[in-house]
Amino acid sequence: MILVKVGGGKTVSWEFIAKDVASLLKNEKVVIVHGASVKRDEIAKKLGSPTKTVISPSGITSVYTDEKALEIFIMVYSGLINKQTVATLQRYGINAVGLSGVDGKLWQAKAKKELLIQEGEKVKLVKDNKTGRVEKINTDLINTLLKKNYVPVISAPAISYENEIVNTDNDWAAAVTAGSLKADKLVYLFEAPGLLKNHKDESTLIKKISKEKISDYFQYAEGRMKKKLLGVQKAFELGVSAVYWGDGRIKNPVSRALKGNGTVIE
Amino acid sequence: MILVKVGGGKTVSWEFIAKDVASLLKNEKVVIVHGASVKRDEIAKKLGSPTKTVISPSGITSVYTDEKALEIFIMVYSGLINKQTVATLQRYGINAVGLSGVDGKLWQAKAKKELLIQEGEKVKLVKDNKTGRVEKINTDLINTLLKKNYVPVISAPAISYENEIVNTDNDWAAAVTAGSLKADKLVYLFEAPGLLKNHKDESTLIKKISKEKISDYFQYAEGRMKKKLLGVQKAFELGVSAVYWGDGRIKNPVSRALKGNGTVIE
Repeated sequence: MILVKVGGGKTVSWEFIAKDVASLLKNEKVVIVHGASVKRDEIAKKLGSPTKTVISPSGITSVYTDEKALEIFIMVYSGLINKQTVATLQRYGINAVGLSGVDGKLWQAKAKKELLIQEGEKVKLVKDNKTGRVEKINTDLINTLLKKNYVPVISAPAISYENEIVNTDNDWAAAVTAGSLKADKLVYLFEAPGLLKNHKDESTLIKKISKEKISDYFQYAEGRMKKKLLGVQKAFELGVSAVYWGDGRIKNPVSRALKGNGTVIE
Repeated sequence: MILVKVGGGKTVSWEFIAKDVASLLKNEKVVIVHGASVKRDEIAKKLGSPTKTVISPSGITSVYTDEKALEIFIMVYSGLINKQTVATLQRYGINAVGLSGVDGKLWQAKAKKELLIQEGEKVKLVKDNKTGRVEKINTDLINTLLKKNYVPVISAPAISYENEIVNTDNDWAAAVTAGSLKADKLVYLFEAPGLLKNHKDESTLIKKISKEKISDYFQYAEGRMKKKLLGVQKAFELGVSAVYWGDGRIKNPVSRALKGNGTVIE
């Protein structure tokens, strides 16, 4: 089984991904997880509530989610982008079924109601935070669909243990999902050829990372890439055997990542 | 099996519905279809593209759906309201799974790319219309979930035979879904006690309608209620044995509609 996580960037090509997945499906089960950050930011701006990011004291960037931001998040991730993605996949003959982490408690998360953020020199406490970290996966729901040859297309939000909707990190959730499903391969596609030593220079691609040495590479991970590396660490902890980072803008993006054209972590 | 279609009005109580459905589930399978028109109108206005309605030459009101309106529709129906509804049901112990008509081609529709509309004395042709009428239901997907004790929570949009997303009438789609699933009971809940002779006076409730005489009642159906009656006709055509219209604002709304507290059509 392959779990493919696709980033929410503008230049990631769902046409290329769909065509590639349609051919991979002849031999393997595929589960897709997707982001939608660019469209979310666009709609948030139009609605007069632009996306705000915050930085944790340990230097991890994340999106600040209050009630209003959460509503926009739900609309764009589990609504607009999820359904448009499903329709694109259907055009390529893939019988996709879109789900959020809320459906059937697919992604159960520990809510983080209070959040510490770094503001300049000071650490501040944010209350009424609407995020959580995914811990438990409803693998029964995913396997039920896979058995019937549907392709699950999953995105945040998740649902807390108190049955509240919470924003969650898709990269982390994808890793926990891959681990819980005992997927052997986890592929991350985004708008870069893989992890770069210098994120402005695509020729500085890191081709291989040993899974024991992931922490050595945090120095190269800009902004949200740090979260992806944390997800990768979690995936290995849960038994995934190889993680592939690849370019979502090129033809056959999944197959090429699997062939080692991006960054291979194993 | 009971199919419950819930309107998108502000005063319809999902708390009452969830509590009632949780108890009905002890003896029956339940499928839910929901609207979201009020929230859609609110978000459309905020995004600077207020909802426009058009009237067909035969006098049926519908929402005009171009590309922009469709995007808002997808966001609110299959995103915000679908997932909030699923979370509410989960809080009452119902293992709800939200789906749109696009997922697994659940609701396949014949696209209506051109639309005739009445504007004053004139009939006008609208092109690039993004609506369609649901004709085929993926009952396999619904039954697969029901067998595993999930409660499917479905809303528009639908998917056309060309795999494009189209806006569609939820009442009609609910009727076709009930018929295709061989549901014996179809319940419509909205912000009124049932069909009223005078829509401004709740004491004029029509208690019973014989299914052979539905067309006699079109005269009492204001605006969108006409579409609901068309849906009811279709449901009987497809073998549903009884249709119940009831008040979604009161306690135990489904059970009370089934007991004949609203309008019973059989």
